[in-house]
Amino acid sequence: MLVRHDAHPEKVQDVLDLTREMGVPVRRVDGRELDAMAHGSTHGGVLAICSEKPRLNGQQLIRLVEDLREPPLLLLLEGVDDARNLGFTLRTADALGVHAVLIKKHLWDFDATEVARPSSGAYERLPLAQIDDVEPLKQLQRRGLKLFGCIAGAKRTMFDVDFSEPSMLAIGGEKRGLSGAVRAICDRFVTIPTREGASLSMSHAAAILIGEAMRQRTGVTAESIDADQADE
Amino acid sequence: MLVRHDAHPEKVQDVLDLTREMGVPVRRVDGRELDAMAHGSTHGGVLAICSEKPRLNGQQLIRLVEDLREPPLLLLLEGVDDARNLGFTLRTADALGVHAVLIKKHLWDFDATEVARPSSGAYERLPLAQIDDVEPLKQLQRRGLKLFGCIAGAKRTMFDVDFSEPSMLAIGGEKRGLSGAVRAICDRFVTIPTREGASLSMSHAAAILIGEAMRQRTGVTAESIDADQADE
Repeated sequence: MLVRHDAHPEKVQDVLDLTREMGVPVRRVDGRELDAMAHGSTHGGVLAICSEKPRLNGQQLIRLVEDLREPPLLLLLEGVDDARNLGFTLRTADALGVHAVLIKKHLWDFDATEVARPSSGAYERLPLAQIDDVEPLKQLQRRGLKLFGCIAGAKRTMFDVDFSEPSMLAIGGEKRGLSGAVRAICDRFVTIPTREGASLSMSHAAAILIGEAMRQRTGVTAESIDADQADE
Repeated sequence: MLVRHDAHPEKVQDVLDLTREMGVPVRRVDGRELDAMAHGSTHGGVLAICSEKPRLNGQQLIRLVEDLREPPLLLLLEGVDDARNLGFTLRTADALGVHAVLIKKHLWDFDATEVARPSSGAYERLPLAQIDDVEPLKQLQRRGLKLFGCIAGAKRTMFDVDFSEPSMLAIGGEKRGLSGAVRAICDRFVTIPTREGASLSMSHAAAILIGEAMRQRTGVTAESIDADQADE
């Protein structure tokens, strides 16, 4: 942990206490040194040097899923074309209770900082799995997870399926959609109903899809809405 | 309409036909002239010069609402801090059937191009109203629209209210949320349930909220899901 020489003691005390508790070495440095290392000037006099967040491999992902106490909800992203959009998608997924996000190995070419910033902490918190091919998806299917492919023009809408079951939601990029390899093993295709000719960005499609999964999982029904309104 | 001298006839014929039909003057220009006027180099040899999209005032907005054949669904955005996020929000709102987006006059300081690009056509298609104060909102309330304020920590979730009625959904920016003036006249406050401590970006909160409104309006119930699954 790098801390500026003249950092206000009150402001950095929490950090210093934690470093002591966790055995993290602290070095006092010049403000200029921090400025040179930080992105932007909002570091507040403190900067941590850390290794990149480790990503789960297929086996670790399966272990994570087996240890969950609720029906797994995973998000598979294909064709992510922008670090910022990926960051926003992770933020939404984390906020709405997705258990892990899966991305194919060859699609990981983002600067971690550019993903982490718009994710507002979700990049650090949410488990990310890097999969080499569809094999881990098949293994998860054998463990009872359904793979829902979100594509334009599918006959079923997201309202016609049951996301409260153990689920993987697969969303493609705007340009190419889902890969053939993923399509070939989807249990169901679903669509988000939109106005004719309109489309959604990947991160907003993901938000709407996960929002619907969350609704189904919290068990809200038309009946409970009626009961609620009768109270007023 | 400016068309590059050497533009491929097949590629611009549709545009030329339309200009003739609509009486739009066409001028042939050098590629360099187009490059200098266009944002980026993906103009494809054609560039239209047009005035900025007109925005509805309060009275025009009320007329639009009165002419609708279905229960109005309006989106009020406060504290938009980024042209790109506004563009994405318009895209989602347009795709999911919002009838108009309302923004306070003093918040309109965006470059139209920066909004239009991520909106993927929605900026041109979706009616945008510029309101000076909350007066038009009150007038719409008197015409039967309910104003739902989306705020963190509200007791009701978006699943507990009826968005199939004539509705205005008010969403604030990430920094300050909804203004006091709008909060003071909201009929209901609702929240999007998220994991403790998590938050959503404005454009993703809007997507989830509008997605839920669309679900309620398309009349999908738990019963129809059951019936669907029984078919298989």
